[in-house]
Amino acid sequence: MPASSRPHRHSARNPGSQTALRELNQQRIADTLLASGPSTQAELARQTGLSTATISNIVRIMSDAGIVETEPTTSSGRRALLVRLCNRSAVAVGIDFGRRHLRIAIATLGYDVVAEENIELPVGHRAEEGIETASNLLTKMLADNAIAHSSVLGVGVGIPGPIDRRAGRVVQGAILPEWVGIDLVELEDGLRFPVVFDNDANLGALAEVTWGPHSEIDNLVFVKVGSGIGAGLILNGRPFYGGLGITGEIGHDTITDNGVVCHCGNRGCLETVASTSVMLDLLSRSGVSRVGQIVSRAQAGDSATLRVLDDAGLAIGRALASVANLINPEVVVVGGPLAELGDLFLSSIERGLMRHAVPSVGESTRLVMSSLGERAEALGAAALVLQHQAVRHF
Amino acid sequence: MPASSRPHRHSARNPGSQTALRELNQQRIADTLLASGPSTQAELARQTGLSTATISNIVRIMSDAGIVETEPTTSSGRRALLVRLCNRSAVAVGIDFGRRHLRIAIATLGYDVVAEENIELPVGHRAEEGIETASNLLTKMLADNAIAHSSVLGVGVGIPGPIDRRAGRVVQGAILPEWVGIDLVELEDGLRFPVVFDNDANLGALAEVTWGPHSEIDNLVFVKVGSGIGAGLILNGRPFYGGLGITGEIGHDTITDNGVVCHCGNRGCLETVASTSVMLDLLSRSGVSRVGQIVSRAQAGDSATLRVLDDAGLAIGRALASVANLINPEVVVVGGPLAELGDLFLSSIERGLMRHAVPSVGESTRLVMSSLGERAEALGAAALVLQHQAVRHF
Repeated sequence: MPASSRPHRHSARNPGSQTALRELNQQRIADTLLASGPSTQAELARQTGLSTATISNIVRIMSDAGIVETEPTTSSGRRALLVRLCNRSAVAVGIDFGRRHLRIAIATLGYDVVAEENIELPVGHRAEEGIETASNLLTKMLADNAIAHSSVLGVGVGIPGPIDRRAGRVVQGAILPEWVGIDLVELEDGLRFPVVFDNDANLGALAEVTWGPHSEIDNLVFVKVGSGIGAGLILNGRPFYGGLGITGEIGHDTITDNGVVCHCGNRGCLETVASTSVMLDLLSRSGVSRVGQIVSRAQAGDSATLRVLDDAGLAIGRALASVANLINPEVVVVGGPLAELGDLFLSSIERGLMRHAVPSVGESTRLVMSSLGERAEALGAAALVLQHQAVRHF
Repeated sequence: MPASSRPHRHSARNPGSQTALRELNQQRIADTLLASGPSTQAELARQTGLSTATISNIVRIMSDAGIVETEPTTSSGRRALLVRLCNRSAVAVGIDFGRRHLRIAIATLGYDVVAEENIELPVGHRAEEGIETASNLLTKMLADNAIAHSSVLGVGVGIPGPIDRRAGRVVQGAILPEWVGIDLVELEDGLRFPVVFDNDANLGALAEVTWGPHSEIDNLVFVKVGSGIGAGLILNGRPFYGGLGITGEIGHDTITDNGVVCHCGNRGCLETVASTSVMLDLLSRSGVSRVGQIVSRAQAGDSATLRVLDDAGLAIGRALASVANLINPEVVVVGGPLAELGDLFLSSIERGLMRHAVPSVGESTRLVMSSLGERAEALGAAALVLQHQAVRHF
């Protein structure tokens, strides 16, 4: 819905007065900073539609009032002024639940990460166990950092599986079958905070355009390659959820006719040929049993590992070609535990993409590894909380 | 860009006054009707964000002033009031250029089609010939209907090929190779009217949510199956163009590894197994040489024709499964010359979709034939002109 449709929220008091207008513009800038993270004045102008002169004036007023702080930076090679909301006594929590791990990040309104921890979880743990472990870890982190429970604006939760947004529930297809059916009520009861939750790949995409280096990108695809494969979409500058919210399920694109049966019920899905679980299976005779070993062996030049990565990369690139042919994103970011391999893995994905995409689309799609690595989903979950705070103001 | 970012365009005069507000709301309703076509009061409320009481008041004022007219209708089984802009002395023209045909539609601001003609073109005609034929036909149609040249708001042009929107030019991959490199200047010179142009599948999608029965759908995919195969996307209620504008290229999804070489430069693309050209090749020994014969033979129960349609439909459904897995649209509309086959073709596409989509996505995607048939693209082209008029007001 276009924002023009919103009734003038400040107009009741004294519509059209200079003071009301200035307050409205301050609120607009604060909301933009809350939703998008620290931004240059030029980005603020682009996102709010206000002139750079107006932005500059209002940022000065907000800075004098201690609402924002500024620091010099460079953007596209030019000098710029980075604006961020000042840390007040409020934080957002992001929790990323994985198959074998749990990560929690705590961030301020100014997108400063003040605490971050990662712990291992037993494979096949029940959802309730995961939630309880998270709750205990969060309590400890808040205590360690002297953050009051009342300062927590909310908790964002990332789950590696499709979420039906109408029902507010994890649905079939989750990499964590133990999580199917989990809903908002259970999360809020278990975590004892207001919760917003989303698919982990969607949160990765959000992280890339808020915490990551892609804040100026309008159309971005984040592909998480892990025990499952899923994508998150930023379209026209915003997370895209489609009809039900079950988007980015590229892990279930058919790659091999009559291939291996997938847990989704189909055959030959991308996940059955290119997930890290499949790579571990393929490499089991070489004594590889952990994803970290795939990374270290590939970096050491082990030919079997490189071959497995190459085959997986080509298949992922082929699926990404369909994605690029359809929605023509400016940037595709590859995330997950293999991101640190850089070109060792990316070059295979790129070959698959270029081989299968319409040439003009393939050539214009920038393919990069995530610079946030395994932090992406938890950071995206925290950003989701901050974004929801901003939306409430509208 | 959210509309909130636009400076208050009426505020210069007398910001905040009741009169200014009413004028702003009238303009908002007129723009919505221009962009979306005739709408119920409930749809107008949803799209403008105004209350139904306000809509009802302002529609009455606009109706008394002769700006809109209303008629009773039903929507989702309830009584409703349909509002449309009155015909004033302004029309929009839509031109659909195909490989073998040319269709022109002339429509009023109220989305009434006042003239529509379709003529055959020789296969392999040069773009300049097509444009000249269109210009002559348009001149004749305007004369026949006593419409002054000065009443033409603009001409919307649909071209069956990808358009690089940054460069404003048809790029490689067009089904009409003769059109590659054609740009806006050539179209405006040849047609002697202001031109807006777009890919034919994008225009089909636009037609389905303006002229067609899907005006309440937020996320819709229109797939044109013809000598080429392409899709147009409506996402969050608006045409979606991605980075360059080269979206919906599902005709170049890889379906067969090492398949036939496609004109795009890849192999085994959907177009090489499921376009009407391929169907005609496959059926050439049975004496089928025109798409109309595919339709008539299938309707007569010819087994070879039904087999060819089934194979093509399964492949199209498979590609649509990737689309649905990625963007989870509420509705997928199949258009093009085979639309009149209805279930004879749709059931195969549906089987392919259900076989390859994530189950919860496949089950929730509504797959239908276009009710606009071969008119969709020309009507969408006219809608594009009306929509651009509305955008200019913002």
